[in-house]
Amino acid sequence: MRAYELIHRKRDGGTLTATELGELVRGYTAGEIPDAQLAAFCMAVFFRGMTAEESLALTEAMLHSGEVLDLSGIPGAKVDKHSTGGVGDKVSLPLAPLAAACGVKVPMVSGRGLGHTGGTLDKLEAIPGFRVDLPVERFVALVRDVGVGLIGQTARIAPADRKLYALRDVTATVESIPLIAASIMSKKLAEGIDGLVLDVKVGRGAFMKTPAEARRLAEALLGIGRGAGKRVTALLTAMDQPLGLAIGNALEVVESIELLRGGGPADLRELTVALTAEMLLLARLAPDLAAARRAVEAAIADGRGLAKWRQVVAAQGGDPRIVDEPGRLPRAASLLPVASPADGVVEAIDGEALGLAAMALGAGRARVEDRIDPAVGLVLFKKVGDRVARGEPLLTVHRNAGGEPQPRVEARVLAAYAIGPGPVAPPPLVLTRLAEP
Amino acid sequence: MRAYELIHRKRDGGTLTATELGELVRGYTAGEIPDAQLAAFCMAVFFRGMTAEESLALTEAMLHSGEVLDLSGIPGAKVDKHSTGGVGDKVSLPLAPLAAACGVKVPMVSGRGLGHTGGTLDKLEAIPGFRVDLPVERFVALVRDVGVGLIGQTARIAPADRKLYALRDVTATVESIPLIAASIMSKKLAEGIDGLVLDVKVGRGAFMKTPAEARRLAEALLGIGRGAGKRVTALLTAMDQPLGLAIGNALEVVESIELLRGGGPADLRELTVALTAEMLLLARLAPDLAAARRAVEAAIADGRGLAKWRQVVAAQGGDPRIVDEPGRLPRAASLLPVASPADGVVEAIDGEALGLAAMALGAGRARVEDRIDPAVGLVLFKKVGDRVARGEPLLTVHRNAGGEPQPRVEARVLAAYAIGPGPVAPPPLVLTRLAEP
Repeated sequence: MRAYELIHRKRDGGTLTATELGELVRGYTAGEIPDAQLAAFCMAVFFRGMTAEESLALTEAMLHSGEVLDLSGIPGAKVDKHSTGGVGDKVSLPLAPLAAACGVKVPMVSGRGLGHTGGTLDKLEAIPGFRVDLPVERFVALVRDVGVGLIGQTARIAPADRKLYALRDVTATVESIPLIAASIMSKKLAEGIDGLVLDVKVGRGAFMKTPAEARRLAEALLGIGRGAGKRVTALLTAMDQPLGLAIGNALEVVESIELLRGGGPADLRELTVALTAEMLLLARLAPDLAAARRAVEAAIADGRGLAKWRQVVAAQGGDPRIVDEPGRLPRAASLLPVASPADGVVEAIDGEALGLAAMALGAGRARVEDRIDPAVGLVLFKKVGDRVARGEPLLTVHRNAGGEPQPRVEARVLAAYAIGPGPVAPPPLVLTRLAEP
Repeated sequence: MRAYELIHRKRDGGTLTATELGELVRGYTAGEIPDAQLAAFCMAVFFRGMTAEESLALTEAMLHSGEVLDLSGIPGAKVDKHSTGGVGDKVSLPLAPLAAACGVKVPMVSGRGLGHTGGTLDKLEAIPGFRVDLPVERFVALVRDVGVGLIGQTARIAPADRKLYALRDVTATVESIPLIAASIMSKKLAEGIDGLVLDVKVGRGAFMKTPAEARRLAEALLGIGRGAGKRVTALLTAMDQPLGLAIGNALEVVESIELLRGGGPADLRELTVALTAEMLLLARLAPDLAAARRAVEAAIADGRGLAKWRQVVAAQGGDPRIVDEPGRLPRAASLLPVASPADGVVEAIDGEALGLAAMALGAGRARVEDRIDPAVGLVLFKKVGDRVARGEPLLTVHRNAGGEPQPRVEARVLAAYAIGPGPVAPPPLVLTRLAEP
């Protein structure tokens, strides 16, 4: 009846010790404590929260439920980036080679997409031949030799988190800041990193709908990082409209390559440079943020980022020719341009609605077991603040057979656009920076 | 994902419809909704509560998960009594035959003891031969022909409650007023009653520690009764010290018989008469409470209650000679008198501690699967307000081999007594009466 006591205490507003949280996590992962007790515990945490000490202890218990990589044999600072997820967020793809080109070692364990947001693994798998299911030993070698390793969460990393997340998902206990923070940090700390840059998304296309909520999550994440002896910085960034112009796996790979070639949409470029620069700063590879930004911009300008990306793709079994010939990526059978129904200014774009539209085309998953079509998606021409004429294309739908019928798709994507008299200033992208002193 | 939505809505403070609660209970009982989802739901209810409409709907869903007895063919009002449980509470034993002797039909489905409180079934089974596992048809015949039927909860009555209670018991979600109320009322309404008298215990030996909590529970129970079209009255009664003098199954049967013979401790008699009188009032067998009390006292004085008890015991297979020769009940091998360590007045008796001491002797269960020794227990000589001299017996421990060793038992029971300078007035027993208008 030990688990009972711990649930009871949390329910009544008490706190648990690190030992007690460790027993709970260990017992649950081993199957000794039933789902029902953990579900009740998670709901009690939803209402009562956790202290900073409890959050750290829960994270460490989940971290130590599996393997923790030891990258200490690799010279240089190991720094990763984590985003809480948004629509069109392909930042990891250009960021990883740019950071590596600047001397950061990037061990990146990523996830798959679910619902309206995409996942880095799905985008990588749009590249023919690219393998994300590498053995841990190969991953470590890639970080050492190439400077970047990109894999999915293995059964050996934080198994407690995987089991607990599946439980929270069906018991309406996902939306708890300490539980979210422990889930994120247990996986990231298992990578053997020295530092971590967090991109905490805020807005109607994000999990955190308000800056206050996002700030609470960022502070919980920073507190855990600090407690675990890691250097952590968080940026709160806007996720109302999609990031960049492409939504859909192969389409996002193409946009990432454009960025590494010195092009790409301004917002994607701004955020990629900002986050990569934070990685350089945490890795002590630049004296200040301005110098770090200049270093990242130089790695774009002189093609070192692109060269590193070519090397990463090849090292993970992918076809490196896609970097120079993006036409080799999967392409959709038909392109459907969607025109603006009115003259005016784009006042808002509902990123979540476009994410769901892309999902309905086959670009994402409604359920974990759904298969993804790498080719399909949306390419926008207009973002918030842009002027548009009636009949001018707003976006193109990249479709294959099997997705939703054309009128349905068209209605969905148009419903996501608010076109009005304007003028509307493009919204700020980076809202707040939270860094360790 | 329907269950998910319902948990989510309750978590966020919303309300569920009767249809939705019905689906939840039906799906859970059928094994379609897993324990984890119900556990999270119960914890959300713990924090968010339920409206009166939700409580009633939950009760009716649980009630209709099993068989609902139809006693409409039996002439006369069918009225039961339910107590929320206390130490030394043997009221059902004298109450049932007294009510029946006065013309009430008493269909009584009782439970077993767990922890520091005893259960009516365990007390009845202390009577040699007494059967509580009768088929429903036999139970109905007893109510019709004898006026009293005493059985345990069968698998056919409110199976949803049994499954849900077992879940709540391990997930720290027992202490929720709407869940407690639905659990009690679903079982009682399944008995086919017209009216119900509730004895809601308050104090440190009871589940509800404060009058405010007990009042909230009583009001929830009354609300459900009213919604289900039943006549319900609740008494809030003190449960700080034990009720009566005997704690332990056969010892409590003896004390019940003493009451029916016109004796017995004053507090037990007062409460038995008060609760039985309420049953007569609900059954419309008396014009007012004073007349009802006089009728009950008359049934004690002229021996009709005792005669009815003899008849009940015989009808359920028990040895009716115990009514006249209580020495035929199981008796403990050794009696240990425990003397007062000081001169003074008994200022308090910790009923819960004495209940646990009796449990440790074998009179109760720490776990559902524990076996009970019907013979063992405690008989008190002093109650709160009584003067006691140093060396004078406070109580006698009735022991068999197998219970706790003597010094341990002695220390336990002495620790339950607070003896001080006094004077202390005996505390009031019936605190509040809540009746339907």
